Amino acid sequence: MIQLYWKNATAAVVGQEHGLSPAELAAGEQQVMAAHAAVMGQVARGELGYVKLPTHPQYASQVKVLAEKHRPGTTDLVVLGIGGSALGNIALQSALNPTTYNLLSDRKRPGPRLFVLDNVDPAMVNDTLKFIGRRLKTTLFNVISKSGETAETASQFMIFREFLRKKLGDAFASRIVATTDSQKGTLHDIAREDGYDTLEVPSDVGGRFSVLSPVGLFSAAMCGIDIDALLAGANAMRQRVESTEFRSNPAAVLAAVKYLAYAEKSKPMHVMMPYSNRLYMLADWYRQLWAESLGKSADRDGREVFAGPTPIKALGTTDQHSQVQLYREGPNDKLVVFLEVAKHPAEVRVPDVFADVPGLTYLRRAKLSKLLNAEKTATEYALAVSHRPSVTIKFDAITPPSVGEFMFLYEFTTSLMGELLNIDAYDQPAVELGKQATFALMGRDGYNDMVKAIKPFTRTDKRYLV
Amino acid sequence: MIQLYWKNATAAVVGQEHGLSPAELAAGEQQVMAAHAAVMGQVARGELGYVKLPTHPQYASQVKVLAEKHRPGTTDLVVLGIGGSALGNIALQSALNPTTYNLLSDRKRPGPRLFVLDNVDPAMVNDTLKFIGRRLKTTLFNVISKSGETAETASQFMIFREFLRKKLGDAFASRIVATTDSQKGTLHDIAREDGYDTLEVPSDVGGRFSVLSPVGLFSAAMCGIDIDALLAGANAMRQRVESTEFRSNPAAVLAAVKYLAYAEKSKPMHVMMPYSNRLYMLADWYRQLWAESLGKSADRDGREVFAGPTPIKALGTTDQHSQVQLYREGPNDKLVVFLEVAKHPAEVRVPDVFADVPGLTYLRRAKLSKLLNAEKTATEYALAVSHRPSVTIKFDAITPPSVGEFMFLYEFTTSLMGELLNIDAYDQPAVELGKQATFALMGRDGYNDMVKAIKPFTRTDKRYLV
Repeated sequence: MIQLYWKNATAAVVGQEHGLSPAELAAGEQQVMAAHAAVMGQVARGELGYVKLPTHPQYASQVKVLAEKHRPGTTDLVVLGIGGSALGNIALQSALNPTTYNLLSDRKRPGPRLFVLDNVDPAMVNDTLKFIGRRLKTTLFNVISKSGETAETASQFMIFREFLRKKLGDAFASRIVATTDSQKGTLHDIAREDGYDTLEVPSDVGGRFSVLSPVGLFSAAMCGIDIDALLAGANAMRQRVESTEFRSNPAAVLAAVKYLAYAEKSKPMHVMMPYSNRLYMLADWYRQLWAESLGKSADRDGREVFAGPTPIKALGTTDQHSQVQLYREGPNDKLVVFLEVAKHPAEVRVPDVFADVPGLTYLRRAKLSKLLNAEKTATEYALAVSHRPSVTIKFDAITPPSVGEFMFLYEFTTSLMGELLNIDAYDQPAVELGKQATFALMGRDGYNDMVKAIKPFTRTDKRYLV
Repeated sequence: MIQLYWKNATAAVVGQEHGLSPAELAAGEQQVMAAHAAVMGQVARGELGYVKLPTHPQYASQVKVLAEKHRPGTTDLVVLGIGGSALGNIALQSALNPTTYNLLSDRKRPGPRLFVLDNVDPAMVNDTLKFIGRRLKTTLFNVISKSGETAETASQFMIFREFLRKKLGDAFASRIVATTDSQKGTLHDIAREDGYDTLEVPSDVGGRFSVLSPVGLFSAAMCGIDIDALLAGANAMRQRVESTEFRSNPAAVLAAVKYLAYAEKSKPMHVMMPYSNRLYMLADWYRQLWAESLGKSADRDGREVFAGPTPIKALGTTDQHSQVQLYREGPNDKLVVFLEVAKHPAEVRVPDVFADVPGLTYLRRAKLSKLLNAEKTATEYALAVSHRPSVTIKFDAITPPSVGEFMFLYEFTTSLMGELLNIDAYDQPAVELGKQATFALMGRDGYNDMVKAIKPFTRTDKRYLV
């Protein structure tokens, strides 16, 4: 079970200017529980698709059927997707499999090597083509796109599909699993024509909330992750965050602390700092969820608000040697959320050596987990002494259930934050202009006006070139 | 050659409230050139150790001698280091070798696999122990620490040294290269006693400025990177940034834009967003340089200032699907620095397929580099339309010289920023308290008072646990 510890965000610890007083908390509780009632209304009316994912009647079994079919013959799995079609896959794999997973021999891995290609960097794509080219018959591609028209995923798909066709002939279609809309769309149509195995992108779930759908589940199942346990964890958290009792509802308390830090305590930067390499990519997943959901220029009444805390990822202890100097002494403009693990997936103990070296003797016989968690406590303490608020999310262990709990906790907290900020947490209108400008620059038909608008940005003005 | 393009940070493009007017630039130029004169005085007096690294008479040759000695018998290189003893190594490797480098066969790699263990995560250390345990005789360890007493590096060193001793007996010392102080210190003494090959951590260069010393050069040389070309690039940039002509000095202009954005235009967040996976880890290296150098609570006259822009890393196009919604519509509190590459290390072209699919035809025959750079221009445009300032650092190609240029540019810009903020850019006083608290928690002798101070943070107050 994961738990939230929030004492170090209170005025009692970090002072009135930067911490929450009992009066502020009482007011915040009222606001959050009003937001909670609104969100629960949306849940009751079936409007929040992501809330249904932990108990969806078919998705997990559909995913497992395809994973069982493909796992035996697959040494390498390449996910073609970006944003919400990549970040959840990366986060699950990083959290629940070893750092060295892709380097292990076929016998030692529970599933195929995994590559998530969430960019159109030509060097990266070329590196991947060269690597999987030698084992193409046992490489499976999972292309993930609701429409099939996301420029990055579409261009990758065109490249890899043609590569497969040239090398494997008619057998190429058996090496592609398409995760896409179940009814319509470019990728849906191609998948049917070519004859791929398919999985569904739920029509009522936005990309950044889709990790617990087939979007995130298939690569996880292929790589040996227990997706039933993951979903069970998410469902357990759903029970907890639906509670109307503020102080026993982790999403409500987390939203209160985050919202008040942002709106009342001048903390526009929300750092997530896991003390665990495996959990580091959860912070990348969180970055999208937080930024794209809450970064909005207008509220739901049409007023200009330019809202949104900026999510920042950091890693403990590593960033103690990079960012903590700033976090302690720079502007007091951050709320830090630590992720702490009680029992790590493995333990290593420092041997009993160098008894005669004064600077090292205290490390003898120490468990690394003890050192790691001591450094976390030390950082928490050092921040508090400098009046910097923090909260901690405590993982008992890094397991499919605890990761599922964490993900659902953050998704639901995001919904509460959307209500508190009075913005639409489920759209992303600002992304549209960049897409259109890309179309114009790539010469797509019908974008002539945009070509003119963007012209000044395509020409380098030499007066400003150094 | 790398170049700085800064028109999109001017008022002419993004408006007066968020962009720099000619009058502000004129004032900024004066401030920056005064800072430049001060820094050049420090250079002339030999006070800035890092400035001497590109032309150091011995370091490159010492590194090459050891790399030539060890490369033939080494399949795996494990760097034990953290902060400045890790981030430069990671950045150079990521920039100048393929994404799939560690997965390639011995024949296809120009050097050993590289693992940089910059944390004490027990799972990560255990994963690494298991992986290299089967090839220990051909694994080389490069332990990097000026003193040898950094808790993370020291504990890792104790673990891996003992592992080597147990498996290899007396031969263990031949598998360790220590990069440390040349005169004194715990690691220096152990290295001499055990008989390791050694390289020097310069005594007058701080960790975050040390990438062009043996700290960063050895792993690069081992992995086939041309360190002479890297240093030549850095030296070429040194010539450029020493210029007293503001408009032809990229460090001066970059410092002016960054300083004015921070101090005059309410932009406390400085995003670095490479449109290249290979350059992404340069942003991590920059994070330390920027945060630890500039995040200071007191200025050089002892006044409380709580200074320091917060560095943030992002990746294009990937983060267009994660962060750009916030960057365009959230608070206008960021300066974005794009890194753009004209000629990528490889090219991939989308094949001429799907001529009959309307949503995909515009992608046919497109080079991925064209798509990637079009998306960068589109994002730059979309940000400018929303009055969000940006600058671009243009790489002709990703090569050892251009990476060397980039690193020296940012180091020197950091020195200028330190002068502009009137803070000491070379110390890190805030890190000390966390170190002492860690000693207390680990039971080191002499920290009893700290044990008492930290006690409230080691006990969970159940009233705040959800």
